[in-house]
Amino acid sequence: LICCIYAYLLHLNVAIMPPNSRCIGDRKSFKRIVWQYFWRTHQYCRLAVLLPLICAFVLGLTFGIWICQLDSRAASNGNILPTIYVVTATYKRPEQRAELTRLCNTLARVPAIHWLVVEDADSPSSLVADTIGNCGVLSYTHLYVATPEDEKLKSTEPYWWRPEGVRQRNLAFEWLRNDPSRTGVMYIADDDNTYDVRLFDEIRATRRVSVWPVAFAGGLLYEGIRCAHGRVLGWIVAFKPHRQFPLDMAGFAINLQLLHERPAAKLAYKVERGFQESLLLTSLGVRQSDLEARANDCSRILVWHTRTAPPKLNNVALLAERGLTLPPVIGHV
Amino acid sequence: LICCIYAYLLHLNVAIMPPNSRCIGDRKSFKRIVWQYFWRTHQYCRLAVLLPLICAFVLGLTFGIWICQLDSRAASNGNILPTIYVVTATYKRPEQRAELTRLCNTLARVPAIHWLVVEDADSPSSLVADTIGNCGVLSYTHLYVATPEDEKLKSTEPYWWRPEGVRQRNLAFEWLRNDPSRTGVMYIADDDNTYDVRLFDEIRATRRVSVWPVAFAGGLLYEGIRCAHGRVLGWIVAFKPHRQFPLDMAGFAINLQLLHERPAAKLAYKVERGFQESLLLTSLGVRQSDLEARANDCSRILVWHTRTAPPKLNNVALLAERGLTLPPVIGHV
Repeated sequence: LICCIYAYLLHLNVAIMPPNSRCIGDRKSFKRIVWQYFWRTHQYCRLAVLLPLICAFVLGLTFGIWICQLDSRAASNGNILPTIYVVTATYKRPEQRAELTRLCNTLARVPAIHWLVVEDADSPSSLVADTIGNCGVLSYTHLYVATPEDEKLKSTEPYWWRPEGVRQRNLAFEWLRNDPSRTGVMYIADDDNTYDVRLFDEIRATRRVSVWPVAFAGGLLYEGIRCAHGRVLGWIVAFKPHRQFPLDMAGFAINLQLLHERPAAKLAYKVERGFQESLLLTSLGVRQSDLEARANDCSRILVWHTRTAPPKLNNVALLAERGLTLPPVIGHV
Repeated sequence: LICCIYAYLLHLNVAIMPPNSRCIGDRKSFKRIVWQYFWRTHQYCRLAVLLPLICAFVLGLTFGIWICQLDSRAASNGNILPTIYVVTATYKRPEQRAELTRLCNTLARVPAIHWLVVEDADSPSSLVADTIGNCGVLSYTHLYVATPEDEKLKSTEPYWWRPEGVRQRNLAFEWLRNDPSRTGVMYIADDDNTYDVRLFDEIRATRRVSVWPVAFAGGLLYEGIRCAHGRVLGWIVAFKPHRQFPLDMAGFAINLQLLHERPAAKLAYKVERGFQESLLLTSLGVRQSDLEARANDCSRILVWHTRTAPPKLNNVALLAERGLTLPPVIGHV
């Protein structure tokens, strides 16, 4: 910049120099003048005319690159967007790393999120730390808390018998409330569901609590929500239709302001199956009329309650019988 | 640019004008000269000095933004990288859109890929077209071909009874061979598997055929490959260890050159279970010594043969009994 100003002053000086010090004499044929200008004029004069031009060009170049990078940084980091806090409770099982990797591939495409991964464990595992730390989500926090012994799923119980991730999600709520100045939106995203990235645009616009339909929930292709003009009019569900909020955990998002306002609201183990969502929303003081209908007035499917089948490991014994062991892997499966 | 050249000619003209037409007279105090320069000089003269500077700045600005965008486009599209042709055979089922969405979220993170989606159908469905067209993968082709009636899975047969996607994958091979000048690497990626994005760096480096271990294949946590210095020494598997190439379909990639060299190589329906991979590789003239061991000499798991459980739709009848119908959705579930 200093160089540029200096050159511009030189430039001015040339333009206002007295006649006897001018670089070129009388008007000549244009071609000859240009030739003379570049090859015969005093070096100082040539510099004085060219330098400001070069400087202005370089200044423009720098400014252009700066603007462009600023623009792309804003687009990727979304500094101006409200942050989405994605809460994922996860537990140890053969497909855990696959599930977290797949979810991470989705979240890595979403700007301005913070991923809160809460492990069901007594200590943080390197499997989870490695997976969420090296998969492309830039902002995350790894928490852990074990499910109490008497609330763990017994091997004789079906998978839906006990509420999942209660203590883990409650820890995430606590973490979010720890900083009273924290703003943004909270969304509970299990590691086996499927998310369209456009869902996160809907989540981000949440003022209090927003809702949308979830595919494969409640034993249906999707649990229906009747919505109009951004409001919820009613529910079309088959499983326990007397639920106050017949929603799936993946079917709503909460503005952090609400979490701060009602510090006691949380999930609980001793709740009838299917009522965790209603418990959380009622303890946050939410009424049906407060709900913001998203996803084109609840008419678009942007999230699927998919379930991953446990991998078939039926040949493990056969391999051992043959006296073979698998070669070790770096990191985890 | 034209404006800029014109202004520069004006600029030259001012610098070489005869003395009697010069804009400013004799040298005066600097402050007064500058003041005069901006407020008293003939407008033409002022323009002639300022315009080239402004033009040079704007030119620099434009050039800077262009360079920057070119740079980021090269980084995201990877024009200099070999293209990976990802072949995905897919068939109609409730979770089809979820599966394609999830795979797309992974592929959208990978530069320089072309996604070849081959539908098992008599005509292309809008579900597949909408899903792959709006999920963020920039380069794709939607093909379709129906499985012959007598090769379709009967409802009484377990899912692994018949080879899947034979005709669909063969159509993809045909499409790839259609253009003899097409170069790159082919990888067969089913829509229910899980892929670490780093796998695609391994795939891209394929000179002939590259291999790596696949988790949850062959009834094991992973089918082991003994590798050293980039070569395959042996296999540690339990399921049919006499297979020539005891690999999963997700465990290898093929350079297109090989497909062009052996135009007859393809998959077939009448093949013993587990032998499709061996059939394809042997018909391509591949020997074990040709295989390139990837993923840190086969010691990293970057792909998981996950399976998605069919969604539970056990309350559909209950909803109908109650005389309720789901509100319609835009597009598909």
